[in-house]
Amino acid sequence: MIDRPQSFRRILAVHLPLQRIDAALALALLLAVPACAQQASPADGNEFVNTLMPLPATVVSKPGNLRIDNSLSYALSGDSSPRLRQGALRLLDRLQMRTGAELAKEPAPQGREATLTIEAPASSAEASPALGEDESYILDVDEHHASLRAHAEVGALRGMETLLQLVQPSGGGFILPAVHIEDAPRFPWRGLMLDPGRHFLPPPVIYRTLDGMAAVKLNVLHWHLTEDQGFRIESRVFPKLQQQGSGGLYYTQQQVRDIVAYAAARGIRVVPEFDMPGHSTSWLVGYPELGSAPGPYSVEHEFGVHDAALNPVEDSTYRFLDTFFGEMAQLFPDEYVHIGGDESNGKQWLANPRIKAFMDAHGMKTTPELQAYFNTRVQKILARYHKRMVGWDEVLSSTLSPDVVIQNWHGSEFLVNGAKQGHRGLFSGPYYLDYTYTASQLFLADPVPADAALTPEQAKLILGGEACQWGEHISPQTIDSRIWPRAAAVAERFWSPAADRDTEDMYRRLQAESLRLDEEGTTHISGPERGLRQLAGTEQDRALTLFAAVLQPVNFGARYQQQHTSQLTALDRLVDSVRPDPPLRHEFELLVDGALRGNSADIERLESLFRSWVDAAPELDRLAANSPLLNEVSSRRSDWPKLGSMGIEALSYLRSGNAPPAGWQDAQTALLREAAEPRPGELVDFVVLGPLEKLVAAANRSKTQ
Amino acid sequence: MIDRPQSFRRILAVHLPLQRIDAALALALLLAVPACAQQASPADGNEFVNTLMPLPATVVSKPGNLRIDNSLSYALSGDSSPRLRQGALRLLDRLQMRTGAELAKEPAPQGREATLTIEAPASSAEASPALGEDESYILDVDEHHASLRAHAEVGALRGMETLLQLVQPSGGGFILPAVHIEDAPRFPWRGLMLDPGRHFLPPPVIYRTLDGMAAVKLNVLHWHLTEDQGFRIESRVFPKLQQQGSGGLYYTQQQVRDIVAYAAARGIRVVPEFDMPGHSTSWLVGYPELGSAPGPYSVEHEFGVHDAALNPVEDSTYRFLDTFFGEMAQLFPDEYVHIGGDESNGKQWLANPRIKAFMDAHGMKTTPELQAYFNTRVQKILARYHKRMVGWDEVLSSTLSPDVVIQNWHGSEFLVNGAKQGHRGLFSGPYYLDYTYTASQLFLADPVPADAALTPEQAKLILGGEACQWGEHISPQTIDSRIWPRAAAVAERFWSPAADRDTEDMYRRLQAESLRLDEEGTTHISGPERGLRQLAGTEQDRALTLFAAVLQPVNFGARYQQQHTSQLTALDRLVDSVRPDPPLRHEFELLVDGALRGNSADIERLESLFRSWVDAAPELDRLAANSPLLNEVSSRRSDWPKLGSMGIEALSYLRSGNAPPAGWQDAQTALLREAAEPRPGELVDFVVLGPLEKLVAAANRSKTQ
Repeated sequence: MIDRPQSFRRILAVHLPLQRIDAALALALLLAVPACAQQASPADGNEFVNTLMPLPATVVSKPGNLRIDNSLSYALSGDSSPRLRQGALRLLDRLQMRTGAELAKEPAPQGREATLTIEAPASSAEASPALGEDESYILDVDEHHASLRAHAEVGALRGMETLLQLVQPSGGGFILPAVHIEDAPRFPWRGLMLDPGRHFLPPPVIYRTLDGMAAVKLNVLHWHLTEDQGFRIESRVFPKLQQQGSGGLYYTQQQVRDIVAYAAARGIRVVPEFDMPGHSTSWLVGYPELGSAPGPYSVEHEFGVHDAALNPVEDSTYRFLDTFFGEMAQLFPDEYVHIGGDESNGKQWLANPRIKAFMDAHGMKTTPELQAYFNTRVQKILARYHKRMVGWDEVLSSTLSPDVVIQNWHGSEFLVNGAKQGHRGLFSGPYYLDYTYTASQLFLADPVPADAALTPEQAKLILGGEACQWGEHISPQTIDSRIWPRAAAVAERFWSPAADRDTEDMYRRLQAESLRLDEEGTTHISGPERGLRQLAGTEQDRALTLFAAVLQPVNFGARYQQQHTSQLTALDRLVDSVRPDPPLRHEFELLVDGALRGNSADIERLESLFRSWVDAAPELDRLAANSPLLNEVSSRRSDWPKLGSMGIEALSYLRSGNAPPAGWQDAQTALLREAAEPRPGELVDFVVLGPLEKLVAAANRSKTQ
Repeated sequence: MIDRPQSFRRILAVHLPLQRIDAALALALLLAVPACAQQASPADGNEFVNTLMPLPATVVSKPGNLRIDNSLSYALSGDSSPRLRQGALRLLDRLQMRTGAELAKEPAPQGREATLTIEAPASSAEASPALGEDESYILDVDEHHASLRAHAEVGALRGMETLLQLVQPSGGGFILPAVHIEDAPRFPWRGLMLDPGRHFLPPPVIYRTLDGMAAVKLNVLHWHLTEDQGFRIESRVFPKLQQQGSGGLYYTQQQVRDIVAYAAARGIRVVPEFDMPGHSTSWLVGYPELGSAPGPYSVEHEFGVHDAALNPVEDSTYRFLDTFFGEMAQLFPDEYVHIGGDESNGKQWLANPRIKAFMDAHGMKTTPELQAYFNTRVQKILARYHKRMVGWDEVLSSTLSPDVVIQNWHGSEFLVNGAKQGHRGLFSGPYYLDYTYTASQLFLADPVPADAALTPEQAKLILGGEACQWGEHISPQTIDSRIWPRAAAVAERFWSPAADRDTEDMYRRLQAESLRLDEEGTTHISGPERGLRQLAGTEQDRALTLFAAVLQPVNFGARYQQQHTSQLTALDRLVDSVRPDPPLRHEFELLVDGALRGNSADIERLESLFRSWVDAAPELDRLAANSPLLNEVSSRRSDWPKLGSMGIEALSYLRSGNAPPAGWQDAQTALLREAAEPRPGELVDFVVLGPLEKLVAAANRSKTQ
């Protein structure tokens, strides 16, 4: 077992001198820390290509490699638990799928030397992962063995993912490159929020999302289970919650238990959110007596902020919540429960004489004061079930117990103010996946904002962050392309050292990770492809595929306003089958930069890309003539070949050195401006306009040279 | 409600004169029966394109159409059951996804006229579908209304699928063409067999397969739950069955109940198969005392026929089976239970002195006689639970109760002999999906074989048939492409009139159905696409996609022999990501035929296809250099561009009329022969060789003209 007394996280985070490591290795480690500063490069003929994501804290590449073939054997610590054994079996299955090798699934007999050894102390009987567990691990690969060691099982699970990411083809087979990795996360809370409240996400969606999370070492599923638009979990004590509040679409308790167990097996905590006192219409359909207005209520199909709110002045409300949380506490072993708390507008409260009287009697001048009172009572209920409370920014108040964790979604001042009041915090605002932030924007946003002016003590209160995938515009068919691969960039931000900020290298590795996630079963590639086939009405949809590659969805707010979406809106348009920050966006940037540097291969590739736009446009129009939904996207369709011609012309001026005629640049600029206009009926934007503008400007300059 | 006393099936099957239909309509029907004989053609500007699959018994196209937009309302029979109401909601969801319309999900208030009316008598409280239910329906669409009427709910469910298949784009939106359809199936038992025994199929696979089955009106899921390689269902009375016989991969009883309910909601029966006395190794791991040899046993990973067999001479075996079937009868409401019965080699029996003594004492000279005894006892047990028995060919014996249904998998003589003995039968041999029969071969094989020489009475005993997807070489990732869309062609054979034998029209409709199944969520397109991306190691896998399009997997037997597969073999090679009877196979035939007729568009398309093979080959080789598994397919890869050049040359001779040089045809023939050679390490075959040979021969003839 590992003989080092201190967790890697502590060691690596504070850069203490490494102890009990031999001198040569220590030197190598010092040179290699942090891994992000320099891509671990091939040494002595080793073919190691680092596509690890998230980047480990330290990676030391070594000569040689370990071949993966049918002879691979493995061994586990003698006292391994079912969780570790099952994790190892999943590792073998995935190794087998990656390499085609036929691997023995039984561990090597005790005493026989195995190719792969995995050592971690068995977890306690209670196998639920918990905040702050030691997730560090050491992975060593040489020409004969791979060894994975950790202080806790969850660290071994993290290391298995790293090991799988190391697999690469070499010499006609597959190998693990020889390497020494010491790794531990920067933040202990690395979450992804899913919102089945607005559009239900059946269990298979949750399962494949958990697989993706595990692959990139995210460790918290924040499950937003209740919303105005739906109450998505079975209560047996209050069955009218799901019977009347869900349209029949909810998770049974058995499904919840299965999902929680599936997550736990992957070292992922599940934190349920029951949003209150607002965003609670669905509760009130079956139990109108909980509301602040008399009702009756029906499930809300419109999005946005609604007036419905739990009644915070009746003891019956708290008795109900006490019973309810008691039931939920049985389903969710995690110590944390999220109570939402966002966007409660107070209108129903002010309109209710009993509530108004209560406020007056208690000297409350504003509804936020009343919400603070509500939060305090709810927190006490949760405490009875040994649960700690999490809430969005709005729960922050001077009377709130410092034990409550604040999840930021507004500007970072809430996080900062929270930290100043001693609250631990989660940073989410910059990680909203329903906004079309690029992977590099998501990646560069730090959970400890540089401008936050926190003391080191306050900064330590930041537990990490969460990527948030709100549910207004997603369906089981489309959600993956909104989450992946961008959430992997967020995962790296949460896990890897703060100095890891090389976006070019991140994109290179993200491309590899995207394909690995696809292999794991996420549908961020196959889902949009299916959507495009359906829009085209044929498998021969190459023209549409080329078109979709240069587009991305407008962001949440723009779509909401332009399409007037509600829960009833069909999510079957082109916007639903194009990808945020599609691979071509960044590739195109690189190609244009390369072309402007005179790289002839890039110029050739660009030209052929531009030609493909021009050539495919007539076929696209033909498809659109038979596809009413595709037909809607008329101005983007007609601009597309024009952008292609623009690119071809610009390249030709650049190549010849001839000046474009007077007015050429103005005409192109006008076209670029037209192509950048919002098109409310179309809901998609071009992702190639910036670099195109650069290309045009450079072509124009060629006349002055 | 429908006022006609007789079921359509009877009427249509025996061609009785149509009653109580007005004269004009009767004439139209007479002209239109059967629908397959003539594609219902556009009349009076109606744009109806018939892509229905299976073809209805009668389709009468009418002028006009019904627009589908947000205003669409619907109404159900006043006494509708939950099954019908939920079916209608699914219909609306799917209509919405297809058209982008925002449809009201509440039925129109009583008395208000609705756009779509669905009428069927409510089924009894027991909503399980049963063999022989009336599945007929009448669908009428005019410019203002669509009306679906049926004698039973299950007929309405079938009609809803037809209605969805009618949806088509027109005039910038979506419509249902005006039409009168009377429809009923030719056979009452239209099954698909799945084999999770050899490779487990998690519930999501079963769910999406049931959706696909419902779409093409298949009505029996034959679920092969136990095999030498795995016992896949939870028994609570004998838990060691799944605990020791499944490697942890089995359906819980709750999952089984959910799946049976999901199937029932779609009018699909679930017939479980518990294969015995052979194919039973997995039973014996936990309960070796059931076996005919002392054991111990372990789960069998090798495929094929094994010796393990239940002990047919001990009363304890029958007591076990009695208890077991009693438990299973609670889970499976269907009247039929399949007991397998195939491939029991008798070796363990003859080697066991007690069994041998029993045979001698009862004058049994062969093990099939003992198996007949076993079958008779098992049948009596099933009868106690009000179940009727189904078995494979081998259960047929002179002592077998005529109540037992024989499922044919050998030559059709078993079916014929069974019918002659009064057994009802199912035809499966020609519908094995793990053999690479083309869709047209599957489609043309009739469950009442023309050469069977059955009396009309005997022919009536044939209940229908089943497409069978055995599990040796499939995984959740690959199974869909083996089943779909070919099983849709089988479904049409089982549903549509016998005279429906136009393979060209079938392929045209199959192409449309394939895309609709893709929309429903089957992964026959997206699964292979994902596999190719993974093999290529990039999303830019166009060269591999072009290559895969001209290939299909070798059939089950060839792969088994060439790769020496077992349950442990990784199913991640190119063979797993190419499709049986891929779309290009038939398209290529048509293109070559068109080219030989001098069709210039076809010649152009062919030439560009051939060029794409030549052009993509270097890129394919580059991909293969980094992909050990792709690299294995070396001779097919090197032959591919040669086939392209061959095609280009042949077209050029054809076009110019110039004679090819002496020896040209011989060289091409040699190359074609080489490309047709089995390649044991590659496991894929070209699907373009026949038409290419035709093209070469025609080019060669051009010199003699």
